[in-house]
Amino acid sequence: MGSLDSNTPTDHAAGQFNPLDPEEFRRQAHQMVDFIADYYRKIETYPVLSQVQPAYLHSQLPHTPPYRPEPMDAIMKDVQSQIIPGITHWLSPNFFGFFPATVSTAAFLGEMLCTCFNSVGFNWLASPASTELEMVVMDWLAHALKLPSSFMFSGTGGGVIQNTTSEAVLVTLVAARDRALGVHGIDFLSKLAVYASDQTHSTFSKACRIAGINPANIRSLPTSVEGGFALSPAVFQSAVEEDLAAGLIPLYLCTTVGTTSTTAVDPIGALADVARDYGVWVHVDCAYGGSACICPEFRHHLNGVDLVDSVSLSPHKWLLSYLDCCCLWVKQPGSLVRALNTNPEYLKNKPSESSSVVDFKDWQVGTGRRFKSLRLWLVMRSYGVANLQSHIRSDVRMARMFERLVRSDPRFEVTVPRLFSLVCFRFVPKRARGPGQIERANRRLLDWVNGTGRAFMTHTVAGGKFMLRFAVGATLTEERHVLAAWKLIKEGADGLEERS
Amino acid sequence: MGSLDSNTPTDHAAGQFNPLDPEEFRRQAHQMVDFIADYYRKIETYPVLSQVQPAYLHSQLPHTPPYRPEPMDAIMKDVQSQIIPGITHWLSPNFFGFFPATVSTAAFLGEMLCTCFNSVGFNWLASPASTELEMVVMDWLAHALKLPSSFMFSGTGGGVIQNTTSEAVLVTLVAARDRALGVHGIDFLSKLAVYASDQTHSTFSKACRIAGINPANIRSLPTSVEGGFALSPAVFQSAVEEDLAAGLIPLYLCTTVGTTSTTAVDPIGALADVARDYGVWVHVDCAYGGSACICPEFRHHLNGVDLVDSVSLSPHKWLLSYLDCCCLWVKQPGSLVRALNTNPEYLKNKPSESSSVVDFKDWQVGTGRRFKSLRLWLVMRSYGVANLQSHIRSDVRMARMFERLVRSDPRFEVTVPRLFSLVCFRFVPKRARGPGQIERANRRLLDWVNGTGRAFMTHTVAGGKFMLRFAVGATLTEERHVLAAWKLIKEGADGLEERS
Repeated sequence: MGSLDSNTPTDHAAGQFNPLDPEEFRRQAHQMVDFIADYYRKIETYPVLSQVQPAYLHSQLPHTPPYRPEPMDAIMKDVQSQIIPGITHWLSPNFFGFFPATVSTAAFLGEMLCTCFNSVGFNWLASPASTELEMVVMDWLAHALKLPSSFMFSGTGGGVIQNTTSEAVLVTLVAARDRALGVHGIDFLSKLAVYASDQTHSTFSKACRIAGINPANIRSLPTSVEGGFALSPAVFQSAVEEDLAAGLIPLYLCTTVGTTSTTAVDPIGALADVARDYGVWVHVDCAYGGSACICPEFRHHLNGVDLVDSVSLSPHKWLLSYLDCCCLWVKQPGSLVRALNTNPEYLKNKPSESSSVVDFKDWQVGTGRRFKSLRLWLVMRSYGVANLQSHIRSDVRMARMFERLVRSDPRFEVTVPRLFSLVCFRFVPKRARGPGQIERANRRLLDWVNGTGRAFMTHTVAGGKFMLRFAVGATLTEERHVLAAWKLIKEGADGLEERS
Repeated sequence: MGSLDSNTPTDHAAGQFNPLDPEEFRRQAHQMVDFIADYYRKIETYPVLSQVQPAYLHSQLPHTPPYRPEPMDAIMKDVQSQIIPGITHWLSPNFFGFFPATVSTAAFLGEMLCTCFNSVGFNWLASPASTELEMVVMDWLAHALKLPSSFMFSGTGGGVIQNTTSEAVLVTLVAARDRALGVHGIDFLSKLAVYASDQTHSTFSKACRIAGINPANIRSLPTSVEGGFALSPAVFQSAVEEDLAAGLIPLYLCTTVGTTSTTAVDPIGALADVARDYGVWVHVDCAYGGSACICPEFRHHLNGVDLVDSVSLSPHKWLLSYLDCCCLWVKQPGSLVRALNTNPEYLKNKPSESSSVVDFKDWQVGTGRRFKSLRLWLVMRSYGVANLQSHIRSDVRMARMFERLVRSDPRFEVTVPRLFSLVCFRFVPKRARGPGQIERANRRLLDWVNGTGRAFMTHTVAGGKFMLRFAVGATLTEERHVLAAWKLIKEGADGLEERS
């Protein structure tokens, strides 16, 4: 710690401090590449779920920053000994929790390039390539998804990369809100009502709260296991009618293709048909499920998308793109820009004033923005739609295999029909009496499996039922990992039965 | 294009698609390191401001994504021939526009590690190291800035990394808003009033609009060149009194240390003294200027920070950290969490329920979040506070030198006293009659300089005066670049005088 050799950055006392010497950069970055390749090579040797206790790091690190530079070797030793034990290894092939966050060499290279240029593309002039490549790539992905041209720059709409779904929902909600308030007046803010199913991601109600929607007017509409946890158009229509009768203004409906709990799919066409009659903005959150729709056999889940106002999909979930990258398409970019534009003097420039260019700062919450499209561009070119389709199909195939394994063991049940690469299931011990005991057994099984460090799953509750989620999708996962995880789960069940 | 050799990813027809083979990763990432090191080495050979025309890229790229994979060599040729010409080279040593975005080898390595792990730290359990290192690093930077312990985890507050200042302002504004509405009731949303000077970044009013603040209640308080464009506590107090008299509820004051136009510094202590009497939340946006406060000779700009509620600083601006990284400290994390927390079943876990851990998803807009603290950790350790201080001082020294050069030429004037590393100045041609002619001459000079591609500056208008902004800070900038830029500016002025 703190020792200075010829490889450490020059100390301030010794003269010029040059933190971006190209040859020093080259040397250290090559070392980091090897560190990372080695990490990927041995990732299976780490416990998937970190087994540390809260505040584990606090006692290991100094409480103030060092005054003198430290050599990179010492820092990397600490990464190995202090950081890696505290990491839940999302890239492990034995990670089946949440939705896995998929990655790829091409995306990593794209991210390196993005970092390299560090071009801050708030407006076109600040880095034209950043804006223009994003426009191209957003149209490319729209083509791969067979979105109508009303969502493309080559048509009448357009797309933009947000950080996460939360922001995609927030900015479209604000666009819809301001469009409505433009008609009714600011005093009607507390009268606006918004809709989603009780399966919609919590990010929706959070975005509504941030945007100043009256919490009393955020509707969480009921779904059922019989209805596949999809939002019923009739339920939606009743809620809208009820709100209208109460003097409220129906504003925004957030539909989902592939909910987080169980990958339920809302019938977006039928819902949009209802919404249109009431002037309600319809958003499709297909953060996870949308990626599958690049395959013809899954595309029907997006049927009716031509009727909605906006769509968001997160390639960081299932299109090999690393965090964070959420693609948002809108039919009326003007409504986003009216709600989110700024025009300070220090950013004024001729191309922006001529309206011949897109300034993406007016499509998002922040001003600064990274050159994120490079990642998606490299992924799509380096793999081609063909390989991306086969990647989706491979994950679905493995999930189908896991589903068959669950069904083959009478102690287990598949709790929700599988649609994509997530299997919801539970352990039903023979001697269990009632739902309370079943839930406790599944909680114990989950803790035991995750505690081994050999696989990681998560849980949910849907339709009042506690269930385990086995989400296939980590980039490195192969059939053998799924088989090993199933064996582990059965081993856990055996142990629980013996002890009960 | 589209040719397949042994180095391209396996085509879907040929069998297993493996987008993260560690050895293929190693090979390609090493190539990318060399590409980037070479780019940094020859960065001065590119025009700083991209000289392309709008839609330049549209005609060069196909309008649909490739079905078959393409070799990385072909893609990298296109990066060189199609992307780089469209980049405004923010890392060029001749970049003096906006505020430069500073970078370093250590931050690049940290970003590679962050990408490598791709650990999604929405809550503690999802990757304990991600949360805990962020807590350590936020305390470290708070120590370096001599923030009071009321902003530290080791004290009674805490910090979190946001993407940009926009989000830091938005989340604190929402926390303040919900605190107020908790007292007054939701119907008072349209009565909340917010304050900032007319020099405050446009992101402030945008955040207010997003949060549903009545646009009629967003106060942009006047400043003057005589007052150094700082917000006067008396002006603030009058505005608050006026709003109170009109039945409004004063909510939030956004102060700035280092405004974007001219690096003005609001007197935060005196303003906070006023705000306290009215229960107004005070935020300090020191995105740029705050970094200088790690040097004792600049720290007085943060005097009074112990009296405010929240502080944000963007190390991506002046602490060598690449985009995007905005540090936000708050005195009362509970107020953030109350406004932004979510608790869906699929994220529930024992550590969160025991309240023994921090779940950063409740401190931000989004759910997913990257392991960004690695970047700051590597920067602070690899360079030490000593080198970071000398980096700040070196930029300020170069800006001071530029200021002297401007003052040495009677055709130019420094328009605002320099405080940090930005010099605001203008060309005053001998024959210019009136402000209109002076402004036109400066616009022409700016276009000419930027059109050469040999240096890049931007402009602003403050106190009604059009001026040029020369912002020193790109990591690779040395004295010789500043001298060359000054020579270029004089050359432009000579040309304009000859032609006039």
